[in-house]
Amino acid sequence: MTPTGLVSLVGAGPGDPDLLTRKAARRLAEADLVLYDALVSPETLALAERAQRFYVGKRCKRHAMSQETIHRLMVRAARRGRRVVRLKGGDPFVFGRGGEEALALKAAGVPFEVVPGISSSVAAPALSGIPVTHRGLSAAFTVVSGHDEVAWRPIVEGLPPASSTLVVLMGLGSRARIAAALLARGWAGRTPCAVLLAASTPSAFTWTGALHDLGQAVMPEALADAPGTLVVGEVVSVGAILAAAEEPSRPRAVASGGGGAARRSPWLP
Amino acid sequence: MTPTGLVSLVGAGPGDPDLLTRKAARRLAEADLVLYDALVSPETLALAERAQRFYVGKRCKRHAMSQETIHRLMVRAARRGRRVVRLKGGDPFVFGRGGEEALALKAAGVPFEVVPGISSSVAAPALSGIPVTHRGLSAAFTVVSGHDEVAWRPIVEGLPPASSTLVVLMGLGSRARIAAALLARGWAGRTPCAVLLAASTPSAFTWTGALHDLGQAVMPEALADAPGTLVVGEVVSVGAILAAAEEPSRPRAVASGGGGAARRSPWLP
Repeated sequence: MTPTGLVSLVGAGPGDPDLLTRKAARRLAEADLVLYDALVSPETLALAERAQRFYVGKRCKRHAMSQETIHRLMVRAARRGRRVVRLKGGDPFVFGRGGEEALALKAAGVPFEVVPGISSSVAAPALSGIPVTHRGLSAAFTVVSGHDEVAWRPIVEGLPPASSTLVVLMGLGSRARIAAALLARGWAGRTPCAVLLAASTPSAFTWTGALHDLGQAVMPEALADAPGTLVVGEVVSVGAILAAAEEPSRPRAVASGGGGAARRSPWLP
Repeated sequence: MTPTGLVSLVGAGPGDPDLLTRKAARRLAEADLVLYDALVSPETLALAERAQRFYVGKRCKRHAMSQETIHRLMVRAARRGRRVVRLKGGDPFVFGRGGEEALALKAAGVPFEVVPGISSSVAAPALSGIPVTHRGLSAAFTVVSGHDEVAWRPIVEGLPPASSTLVVLMGLGSRARIAAALLARGWAGRTPCAVLLAASTPSAFTWTGALHDLGQAVMPEALADAPGTLVVGEVVSVGAILAAAEEPSRPRAVASGGGGAARRSPWLP
């Protein structure tokens, strides 16, 4: 009898292993093979005690392994009866190519499942005290990826000014073009914005400022490779209130370029 | 010395206690007091073994407790040194009034934290095999609440046809009006849609069909009170492929009203 393997497409959440789901942690503990991406933390990987672990991620233009090779590896291992965890930062179905991998597994007839993870699109703002929706400020949010201008531009240009919250994942490099597109669409230059780097990790960094300063906002060099989330909308002001009230006697650092405020300490007690 | 309490604003995820984060599970186990909402499952609550538990939720027009009373309860308990978990379905900052509660706690000088949860906006589709983004089909998603037409209408009317994925939380009652708004905006009548009820629970139900049938889609009466998520966009076709391939020999039930396909079994193996 051939043993039946299983591929779990697992979301690792924003980085903090405490923000893994209980199911994700269990799948990691049981795994024979873990294929992981760039944004997965070493602490999270360490939960896969008995597994072989392979880095298959891609950051920017550096591809460690082609998508087809990843599919082939997963299918082969599952057919040999192995428990495979395909571990992705955030949620596997939010800009994670999880859909493509699910289709490949289905086409190959391999049993698989999706284990959702905490998406940075909601959690990165939340961990800086920014609710993506807030009564009276925003009753909707839109999530785009900053990587592909052809994809984000029509969405961003369709957003009525001040109507809702815009979240841009992998948005650091496109912050100037996105700010320009929103200003051209009629968004007010004073609309509050935040840039969230390495959210949920000890090196988390938050820049807040106004939309007309976002394009020139200067980020710490040490975090140039960290995952970056942009948030544009009035809800950012909630995060500012929560952060300001927390440190009444400490002055807030001012970012050098953009006139915004930067802080390293999370607003959590 | 006065003991220091803590209020944790905790996301319970879509319902399945396995989709709680590890941090949420730990906060529940340590809690002295749990204030929970309607969509929190009994299995999740059972993790708070030593806590007093109070239902403070609201479903539709039935308010169990005013928002101000909830704030007062949390503040008083934390000042007495108790560990309070404010437990909300999904994520506390996605239509959960978590921002308001955070501001009230900050104003009262009470230590608090936010523990993000898996939002149904991403997880309900994912658990039906629908990725909210998918290369070549959708590079963005927008999340609105179906409760407040004044809030969703400008957002929905601003969405360029076929550009992205629309997710409507608490959208069951407004499905006909939302479908009409999208059709009026120029979305194709054949755009695939899904209605997801009680996602991640054993009674999960998925309706899929075309946008021009969404308004008349008939839902099971037994699930009239279940949380409902609408998804509109080409990504729904990915879920259909994953579901269809899973049950090659079983005919799929046809929903009585809308010409769509209904199924009870999840697509997961």
